[in-house]
Formats: sequence, structure tokens, C-alpha cells
Amino acid sequence: MKTTYNFNAGPCVLPKEAVKAGIEALQDFNNTGMSVIEISHRSKDWEAVMNECRTLWKELLQIPDNYEILFLGGGASLQFCMVPMNLLEKKAAYLDTGVWAKKALKEAKAFGEIVIVASSAESTYNYVPKKYTIPADADYFHITTNNTIYGTEIHTDMDSPVLLVADMSSDIMSRPVDVSKYAMIYGGAQKNVGPAGVTFVIIRKDILGKVSRHIPSMLDYRIHIEGESMYNTPPVFPIFIMTQTLKWLKKLGGLTAIHKINREKAELLYAEIDRNPLFRGTAAKEDRSLMNICFVMAQGRESLEAEFLDFAKSRGMVGIKGHRSVGGFRASVYNACPKESVQALVDCMREFEKIHK
Amino acid sequence: MKTTYNFNAGPCVLPKEAVKAGIEALQDFNNTGMSVIEISHRSKDWEAVMNECRTLWKELLQIPDNYEILFLGGGASLQFCMVPMNLLEKKAAYLDTGVWAKKALKEAKAFGEIVIVASSAESTYNYVPKKYTIPADADYFHITTNNTIYGTEIHTDMDSPVLLVADMSSDIMSRPVDVSKYAMIYGGAQKNVGPAGVTFVIIRKDILGKVSRHIPSMLDYRIHIEGESMYNTPPVFPIFIMTQTLKWLKKLGGLTAIHKINREKAELLYAEIDRNPLFRGTAAKEDRSLMNICFVMAQGRESLEAEFLDFAKSRGMVGIKGHRSVGGFRASVYNACPKESVQALVDCMREFEKIHK
Repeated sequence: MKTTYNFNAGPCVLPKEAVKAGIEALQDFNNTGMSVIEISHRSKDWEAVMNECRTLWKELLQIPDNYEILFLGGGASLQFCMVPMNLLEKKAAYLDTGVWAKKALKEAKAFGEIVIVASSAESTYNYVPKKYTIPADADYFHITTNNTIYGTEIHTDMDSPVLLVADMSSDIMSRPVDVSKYAMIYGGAQKNVGPAGVTFVIIRKDILGKVSRHIPSMLDYRIHIEGESMYNTPPVFPIFIMTQTLKWLKKLGGLTAIHKINREKAELLYAEIDRNPLFRGTAAKEDRSLMNICFVMAQGRESLEAEFLDFAKSRGMVGIKGHRSVGGFRASVYNACPKESVQALVDCMREFEKIHK
Repeated sequence: MKTTYNFNAGPCVLPKEAVKAGIEALQDFNNTGMSVIEISHRSKDWEAVMNECRTLWKELLQIPDNYEILFLGGGASLQFCMVPMNLLEKKAAYLDTGVWAKKALKEAKAFGEIVIVASSAESTYNYVPKKYTIPADADYFHITTNNTIYGTEIHTDMDSPVLLVADMSSDIMSRPVDVSKYAMIYGGAQKNVGPAGVTFVIIRKDILGKVSRHIPSMLDYRIHIEGESMYNTPPVFPIFIMTQTLKWLKKLGGLTAIHKINREKAELLYAEIDRNPLFRGTAAKEDRSLMNICFVMAQGRESLEAEFLDFAKSRGMVGIKGHRSVGGFRASVYNACPKESVQALVDCMREFEKIHK
């Protein structure tokens, strides 16, 4: 098999153990004589997977008992309308830190008044605004904790005077989180916790049922809580791989352990970006993401961009082209990205430097 | 590996070739050195899968050019609210043929006036009503072509004076369909066309954009058409297996060929139900489903139900317990259910008869 260093922004590299368990379960699930995608989602074997998945989420994130964890279809983008539909009665506040944050607030506008407390749009979202006031009468305050395209991240759990809702699609399970500071955390699985096709929602139960509008059943969190994420047929295989991914994470030592590894990987690459005269980082240093590391060619060396992409590709790097809206390079170094991949990229940047001294 | 005869109602048995292709793609997709669940959904390799899937749908069902085929997350249950949200301005008509039809019309009620043209609820949905009038001023008429729980099916493509919308979750691709008679066909993949986690929507483009309400982006068919089912990250693995399932179907000879096989399988089992004095079918004969075959113990032999379930289970039958709302037995004999499985069940019923003569 070809050697690749997978820096895809999501879907992305997954733990080898999780993929292997997926292969085995496709062949013969739990000695049932059937593939995991051929069993009934109402069978005891499948219920055991759902329970294991829920338990792993609760353990790893230490989710308090007054919260539920849901596994839904439709993607985090569907949450952009489900959040206001379920929680917004009059006014909500949003922090605009990138394209995804903007999409979330755009969808919310149809459901009530939206206050954008701050935005870093004017500088291509290369930092996270810090000085702003959250209106005390807002129904909730929405943040995007990691901004995949720009490589910025909110590193701490903030205090909010109103319900705090966080899209953690691209940094969930990358560090310990104080869940009790959030009213809701949601995201697509396809970065740190699994393949595409399943969305997680961690929600404090008492915040529901306060809006006056009609909510269609499939968009009502209460219905999914009541159905234990099986109100309708769940996305079976994505949930299975998510469970295996979390098992791997637990075995590795959980969130404190992975946070340490994530910091080491990020420091290794940021150090090279800062040292290597050919490159420069794009995100404000204090907001640098541990998950998506964005950089460009240094000033005056912009013409080398295409050459470096080819050079890296020829050495097995995959997915390091920056998002089309910002250009340059992006290395996504999610939980399952091994340190060896980061080292390979650093080596590649050094080699490239030697050629272009 | 244990020998099983898989009659699960969905998720259910899939073609061996499709599962095998899934295993291979998990190991190393297209010699990329990565698993299919680790590649970017914006990569050329993945775009090729999406295109192949679309092409297979169009070919197999002979979908006219003025229709689009979409692959979405969320399940067919999400369509229950998306259909009225996108199509219902004033009034819609629904045919009530079972629990799923009822769920669909219940969701629609929040969006306008709903006329139930007919219902077979009074006789536990054991037939499909035929005498009814579709209001000429309805925005659309909604039917559920196959009723999984009760084993009834609408076997022909009807003429409707208004837009015809069909939930074909459990009989899509089981027979040739004149798509041009429908304005929209949708369903969950997890019966005839793949694993759980992806929903297909076949929609005539000109019917969209006629309602006055605001539609959230993720619930707006126009947005998904524009994004070619990639407005957001699609459920990658379910779509991959769907593509492989359709490849298998094409190789087998397409819908005319599978329809013949499905009729043979169903006739084999219905003949045994009608012949064997221990059992009786529950659905009206003219409405008997080719997909879900429902039967119970004959009158006076009801006490044998649990014993037959155990007997069948010990012979490798899986998933033949009837839905909890109707009891008895249900053998789901979807496209990928081999004739050998049906024969094994027939043999099992005959053996049971000998014991209980």
C-alpha cells in the first residue's frame, strides 16, 4: 500500500484500529453471520453499540447527567437551522469567526433577531475577536470553537451570561472541555470522532421546550432524546466507526493525553513555519489552532507555492492545499494524524528550503 | 461463518459484491493508500463515485432529464417535513396506508390543509384503498408505495391529476417505474439500495420555488440540487455502498430482471403460506407486497407462534418476527435476499407443519 501522510481537512485520517474494526464488522459482525450494515438497528447487538458509543462520549468528555448526547444524520449544517428552531424565541448572539460561523448565523436570521457581537471578517478571519459584549437578553450565544479554513481556535471554555452554544465540529475531543459551561455542543463527526454521515449533539435538557413555534419532529431535539437517537433509522456504519474511534481515544488515555499529543504535533509544525524563511503562518499566534495549521509562502516567495505543493505531493503529503477562499497551505492534524506525518511535512519543508536557499 | 437467512426489514441483507467492495475500499480506496472514509469528499476520486452513483440511478430508473437525483442525510423521516416545506402552499392530499404514511401526513399538517383521501386504518392497513378522489386543487398527492409493516404494495404507477409524490423507501428499484408519472420519489436507502445513512430524492426541477415560506438551506431541495448533493459533506460510506449495490443490480440485468426474480421469490413464499394449513397471509391478495411478506398462524393455531419463531431461528432465519404493532411474522425479501433464503423459510414452514399435523 502506498505511503501517504494524510492532512485532509475532513473527512480525514482515522485511527488504524477503528478502520480495522470496521472491516471486521463488515465481514461478520459479532459472529452474527451478517455484516454490521445488514443487521437490524432494533437488534440487541446494535443497541449495545449505541450504548457503548453514548457511554464513551459521557466518560471521555465527563458529560454531566443533565445533558443528553445524540447521534443524528444530516450534518452539522442541519444544526445551523435546528439550533435557532429549538432555542431562539426573540434574539440570539453570534460570534463571526469564519465561513461556517457566518453560515450558522445566516440560517438563524429566519428565526429571530441576530446580533453579531464581533467579526474578524475584515482581516480574512485570521484571529478570534476577544472584545465584545454579549447581550444579556439574548436567548443564546453561538460560537465556532475552531475555524477549519483559517486555522484559528478558541482554546478555553468561556463564561457566557446567556446559554452558550458551540459548533465544535473540528476540535471536539481534542482537549478536555468543561461541558457544564455550554448549553449545547454540536458538530459533524468527520474530523476527530469518525467518518462523514453522523452529527453529535450534546444538549442540556432543561433548555428545550421554551420556544413557541412548531418544530417538525425530525428537527426537534426532544423527539430524538425520547427516541434515544433512534426515532428513525440511525446512520449505522458511521456510528459504528465513531464508537471505535472513541475506544481508541480512551485506550490512548483520553482527552488529557490527546491534548498533550496535539500540542506537541502543532508546536512541531508551527516551529518550522516560524523558523523556515520560505514560509509564514497566517493566524494570530495566540489564536493558532491545534487542529488546522494554515501557512503561506513568505513575502517575496509567493511564486513557489505551486512548486511546493507538487514537491510535498511527490513525498506523499495529501490534503495540504489551503481552502480555495484563502489559498496557501493547510495541514489538518486532527487526533488520529500521527506525529510521523507532521515530522514528514516538517522534513519536506526543510528539504524545500535547501533547494531554494 | 454462521449460515443465516436474513429477512430483516431494513437495514437488511445487501449484495455480497457490494459488501466486499466496501471492505476493499475501507482497506485501500483506489490505490490512494487511504481508506474511503479518510479521503476528501472534494477529491476527484470521490467525485467519480458521486457521478457513478448518479449515472446508475438515471440509467436503472430511466430518470428523465428534467429530474434531479439527490443523496441526502437525515433519513426518509426528514423528507416528511421537507416535502410540505418545499411543495405545500395551501392544500395537499395524502393516502393513509400505514404508520409511515400517517407519520408523513402528520408532519405535513403544520404547513397547510391536509386531505386524507382514504385510509385502511380500520382494518389494520391490510389493504390499499382504491376508491377515492384526489382534490384537483391540491398542491400534491402523497402515497407510500410499499407498506413495510403490513405487507401491502401499490404495484402500478398511478395517474394523478396533481403532482404525485411517493415514498418508495421499501420498494424502490424492485420493479421498473415510470418516473415521469411522479413529481417526486424519495426514500431511505436501507432496504433495496444500500445501508442506513443516506436518503435518495428524485425530483422534477420545475415544481420547486412555488411556495412563499422561508426554507432553511439544508431543507431546500434547490440548494442541494445546486450543490450536486455536496452542499455539505455527504454521508460518504453509505453512498459508496449504494453505488456498489446499484452496480450489482445493473450487472444482474436491471429492473426488469430483478422484478422477475422478486415475483418468483414472493410467489414461492405466498404459495406456501396459502397451502400450509398452519399459516395464513394477512394482506389482501391483490395488494400483497413483493418486498415484505406478512403472515400469522392460522385460526386456532395461534398458540404455536412463539414455537415457530424459535424453530425458524434455530434453522438460521433472522428477522422474521412481525412488527410489534401487528404481531405474527414478516419476511422481508428485498432485492438482495437470495431465492435460497426464501426456499429455506418455505422448507422450515413445511417441517414445522409435519411436526404439528
